[in-house]
Amino acid sequence: MEQNQRIVLVERPEGMPDERHLRLESVPVPTPEDGQVLLKTIYLSLDPYMRGRMSAAKSYAKSVELGEVMEGGTVSQVVASRHPDWQEGDLVLSHSGWQTYALSNGRGLRRLDPSLAPISTALGVLGMPGFTAYVGLLEIGQPKAGETVVVSAASGAVGQVVGQIAKLKGCRVVGIAGADDKCAYVVDELGFDACVNYRDDDFPAKLKAACPDGIDVYFENVGGKVLNAVIDLLNDFSRMPVCGLIAHYNDTRLPAGPDQLPRLMRAVLTHRVLIRGFIQFDFAPRFPDFQRDMGDWIRSGQVKYREDIVEGLENAVTAFQGLLSGRNRGKLLVRVSPDPTR
Amino acid sequence: MEQNQRIVLVERPEGMPDERHLRLESVPVPTPEDGQVLLKTIYLSLDPYMRGRMSAAKSYAKSVELGEVMEGGTVSQVVASRHPDWQEGDLVLSHSGWQTYALSNGRGLRRLDPSLAPISTALGVLGMPGFTAYVGLLEIGQPKAGETVVVSAASGAVGQVVGQIAKLKGCRVVGIAGADDKCAYVVDELGFDACVNYRDDDFPAKLKAACPDGIDVYFENVGGKVLNAVIDLLNDFSRMPVCGLIAHYNDTRLPAGPDQLPRLMRAVLTHRVLIRGFIQFDFAPRFPDFQRDMGDWIRSGQVKYREDIVEGLENAVTAFQGLLSGRNRGKLLVRVSPDPTR
Repeated sequence: MEQNQRIVLVERPEGMPDERHLRLESVPVPTPEDGQVLLKTIYLSLDPYMRGRMSAAKSYAKSVELGEVMEGGTVSQVVASRHPDWQEGDLVLSHSGWQTYALSNGRGLRRLDPSLAPISTALGVLGMPGFTAYVGLLEIGQPKAGETVVVSAASGAVGQVVGQIAKLKGCRVVGIAGADDKCAYVVDELGFDACVNYRDDDFPAKLKAACPDGIDVYFENVGGKVLNAVIDLLNDFSRMPVCGLIAHYNDTRLPAGPDQLPRLMRAVLTHRVLIRGFIQFDFAPRFPDFQRDMGDWIRSGQVKYREDIVEGLENAVTAFQGLLSGRNRGKLLVRVSPDPTR
Repeated sequence: MEQNQRIVLVERPEGMPDERHLRLESVPVPTPEDGQVLLKTIYLSLDPYMRGRMSAAKSYAKSVELGEVMEGGTVSQVVASRHPDWQEGDLVLSHSGWQTYALSNGRGLRRLDPSLAPISTALGVLGMPGFTAYVGLLEIGQPKAGETVVVSAASGAVGQVVGQIAKLKGCRVVGIAGADDKCAYVVDELGFDACVNYRDDDFPAKLKAACPDGIDVYFENVGGKVLNAVIDLLNDFSRMPVCGLIAHYNDTRLPAGPDQLPRLMRAVLTHRVLIRGFIQFDFAPRFPDFQRDMGDWIRSGQVKYREDIVEGLENAVTAFQGLLSGRNRGKLLVRVSPDPTR
């Protein structure tokens, strides 16, 4: 009898999570009751926000409880239905978590049409990461033609979209990434104007050279040394959407000094900088606009995307470690079971 | 023959400025030419922003050059006029700087009517500091009835106005100040709901106790340990207008660690905080609204104010040191010559 493979949070990690914290288990595949569907996971999305869910610290969403399946967005297929709206074979966007099967009462499922776009994109460029880029850049960053937009984690699921939208808006776009091949990708394939590797010794000087007119929008995905270098380059009335701080997600204590906070605050004051944290769901009413615009941009080839697909749920923990370390190349997905549309 | 007493920046201070940096000089009183007026200073405003003008560091306004008179807002009287619009005896808001006499071509002068309000208020509650409070709180802070507004430097020229406007908007208002008598003043005289002395050992715990529902608006005037304590209390969607950072104006290097910046950024991200630096003149079009509203509030007694008036230009440097150290009580002014309206 087929089993449900699932990854359960069994201990809260301090620092990098591993198999001690995230345990692969086998349990029987559940049976849908009246009003339920059984979903089989095709793709599981791995995203940096998941690190926060593993911690007990208060945040914008509640933590995963110990003993619970790790949460996560999925593209799934209905394999059994006792729900009037759903039929066997339907492809859906779900939030089934890190497991091969899940029950759903249909709430929160979104039907996917594989003739419009590859179904995996519902977890990436046409899904949460793409929407994050869209609202963070356009609603908070408000880029104007001719301005300089800098995006960290530039080749990641969000960063790659931020940079391309900024190019569409007529901006000079400078990426920051942690590997030369990532930098080459965003410049050569995605059309960024420049990209700087933050692991280079003279990273601050290189960033400055890449931004001769300073920075008008800094799309913050990482924090740490990247933010420290950006502070000195912020222009008057610059904007900083704060989307993520991946450099700090595994921090177990504050970094040793000197204290950089007064330096940021001084820049905020003298340059009248706006800094604003956001979560994409705060902007949910903009989702239809996003779907329309991003659909157009993808179809016209104005926005490209790259996926990094790992095979098998058993490799999810290692892949997630890679995400936190910058080893992924593009939007990271786990192919949990074969994609019937490919 | 009467001399013009003036205080000239002769050396850029590192740390606290003193008489080595700011030298009192006597020079002949200048004579107006055609199109000019001679102004005699009645009140000189002393404001924290002046510390920035003494530094060579790039900021939103250019530094005072070595050998130049220190700049500053004044209430002055026309004592000789060769300008068609101005007559001897006219009272004006000027920017004559730290000196007893100044020439003006009339540009930037604003006529003051002593029957409407004491002329000194043009430098305080009805002038730049009041306008700073008004636009920072209302345009950026956007307080809503029932929210908690915290203001640092609560008894200062800006802070006292911020708190009173927030009370008018129906907020719970918590001040932060550096002396028990300042705290008593804003609670007993100005109607703040609470005030916490940041010099107390258990200041963070006291601030938390004074803000049982967290902080929705933090009006930042100081930085340093006050900001560090505020970070932990910021609510979802809270706003932080950044008006000043007086704790850092004399810093000659960054404070030793730990680095508090990641802690702020984490709060920004998880609570979707908005931080925005501003200078009052960015909002110049709102000045007529401010004059109307604040005039009404002063006349109706809904907004009160306190001035701390020091006698004589020769005491300006000591008074300015006191301002940076928190020794003033209310809006700090130097009475450079007798006020003819009192």
